[in-house]
Amino acid sequence: MKTKQVRIGNVLIGGGNPVAVQSMTTEKTSDVEKSVAQILRLEEAGCEIVRVAVSDEADALALKTVKSRIHVPVVADVHFSAKLAVLAVENGADKLRINPGNIGAESEIRRVADALKVHRIPVRVGSNSGSIEKNFLEKYGRTAPALVESALHNVQILEKCGVEDIVISVKASSVPLTVEAYTLLAQRCAYPLHLGVTEAGTEESGKIKSAIGIGSLLLNGIGDTIRVSLTADPVKEVYAAHEILRACGLETVYVEVVSCPTCGRCAYDCMGLAERVSERVRNVRRRLKVAVMGCVVNGPGEARGCDLGLAGGKEYCIIIEKGAPDLRVPVEDAERTFFERLERLLTDEE
Amino acid sequence: MKTKQVRIGNVLIGGGNPVAVQSMTTEKTSDVEKSVAQILRLEEAGCEIVRVAVSDEADALALKTVKSRIHVPVVADVHFSAKLAVLAVENGADKLRINPGNIGAESEIRRVADALKVHRIPVRVGSNSGSIEKNFLEKYGRTAPALVESALHNVQILEKCGVEDIVISVKASSVPLTVEAYTLLAQRCAYPLHLGVTEAGTEESGKIKSAIGIGSLLLNGIGDTIRVSLTADPVKEVYAAHEILRACGLETVYVEVVSCPTCGRCAYDCMGLAERVSERVRNVRRRLKVAVMGCVVNGPGEARGCDLGLAGGKEYCIIIEKGAPDLRVPVEDAERTFFERLERLLTDEE
Repeated sequence: MKTKQVRIGNVLIGGGNPVAVQSMTTEKTSDVEKSVAQILRLEEAGCEIVRVAVSDEADALALKTVKSRIHVPVVADVHFSAKLAVLAVENGADKLRINPGNIGAESEIRRVADALKVHRIPVRVGSNSGSIEKNFLEKYGRTAPALVESALHNVQILEKCGVEDIVISVKASSVPLTVEAYTLLAQRCAYPLHLGVTEAGTEESGKIKSAIGIGSLLLNGIGDTIRVSLTADPVKEVYAAHEILRACGLETVYVEVVSCPTCGRCAYDCMGLAERVSERVRNVRRRLKVAVMGCVVNGPGEARGCDLGLAGGKEYCIIIEKGAPDLRVPVEDAERTFFERLERLLTDEE
Repeated sequence: MKTKQVRIGNVLIGGGNPVAVQSMTTEKTSDVEKSVAQILRLEEAGCEIVRVAVSDEADALALKTVKSRIHVPVVADVHFSAKLAVLAVENGADKLRINPGNIGAESEIRRVADALKVHRIPVRVGSNSGSIEKNFLEKYGRTAPALVESALHNVQILEKCGVEDIVISVKASSVPLTVEAYTLLAQRCAYPLHLGVTEAGTEESGKIKSAIGIGSLLLNGIGDTIRVSLTADPVKEVYAAHEILRACGLETVYVEVVSCPTCGRCAYDCMGLAERVSERVRNVRRRLKVAVMGCVVNGPGEARGCDLGLAGGKEYCIIIEKGAPDLRVPVEDAERTFFERLERLLTDEE
């Protein structure tokens, strides 16, 4: 099901465009130096859209300077205030994240809608299991229909004001509830969907919850932009998001490192080598596949599907390279020889 | 779809039993001291079935002593040798992992099947994208049908020999391929399924691949036992497996810690507190939910669904406890007061 295409600065989402990776700053937006520094780190990690909190006038006014020093579009996250929302838009926000149902009188909502239309920027509305509006909570309980109806209620308010470029989210802290809600929402409308599991816990459990929630939706063809929420440095959110896209086969220009769980059969430092290889290739934007395998049971088979692979043995390892004869090297020389081949592969002309 | 129930030592899998967590040792099995020490660590982390590699006679013979010093059932992983498989069974293996298609003549297969039947233990057969049998690879390519047909071929060999207690796996290093293969397999038979994504990469990407692959299958009701494969300390596999089960709502007796990504609105060390709370409750087998929230937007709503919650503010935090009036405390006292309440909650009579 193809969604409607929406433009956020220089990034297109929906309509079959690649799934875009988002994150959110943790610095106070009005602290321009810190915000810019954090956003530049996020960009380097592969963040394609950045969200910032706008909780007062200073934050809204800071957007202009922040924007002039970064390269990715900025989403202003505003709650409860039409005035701040309009100010954020006037100061260059590329997208708003606001729930019109939260900002009061219809005249206030119209002010925001007019600002969106004049500046031709999109808006994300959405519900969250922690803040479902009271009437939907009473009618449906904390369920998928409550999340979806609450989100669509906000969509309808904007549609009535003539706003067309809308992105929707229905985040819950429960993974099954998140998946159920987005699945239902995808059947109900063609707006692009922003996927995320909210308040996802500590870094460790947050990654796993986000991976399952976002990943299983993406595998079902649902989702146009994703945000991994972690109680951690947001750079880690961006890394995790790319890992999810790669695991789902939606990001293909990178160096995939395949390795196996070491078991009793493994006779060399497979674990350490796999980590060192991954670190080396993390930022290489080439479509390659490398295998670091512990033993000769699954090793050679897996390595043959790769550009370069190592299958460990007891006394010797086999280095398998596409288009070259297999190389048998003593275990103690394996890492050095493997890295030589890897460097040659990475510096090859494409 | 309810699968057939199979007994592995004192653990029942399939037939609606709870999904069991497996891991595999990385020590040489014949090194009894190291193997036992590693298995005891795995047990403490929550491993319910442990697999060990049996690659020579010393490994097979060591099983008896290893078994006498641990508390979870042991699966012997054997390749290519009927003799070793039989020896492993005779020395107390609670389950075999072997592909009969690998062990040669029919008489050899019959020897293994007879040992399984005499000792009434189950067997796992399965295919792996790195070692699909040649004829299936030629017929189907490296696809889900190849994985499934290759696994079912091994099942049929055993069925012909009268073996009934079978568990199946169809692991691939590609997540979409893994999900597709298990989905197809679940439609084709009622044997319990052992889920895993194989050669899943480094610790970081491995966790994410396993979470998506295993998690999305579990959300669809597929899977009876799971193994997270990581190129890392297997204790981490066990932790990750439990995180997956919890995220999917399949493990409920634990202390869930809900927290939110800190953003510009957060005015206290939410991240640090969430980590410290998680560490404290990791091994508590009580069904409780605790929220550590950064701000007052989603915080109070989320905290109200919990047994205990903290919602941060600029100068004060709100501690929300089920059945008690909200407590407003200055930011600097929040962590101390929250931990007092938490300890009281954890030591309460159930």
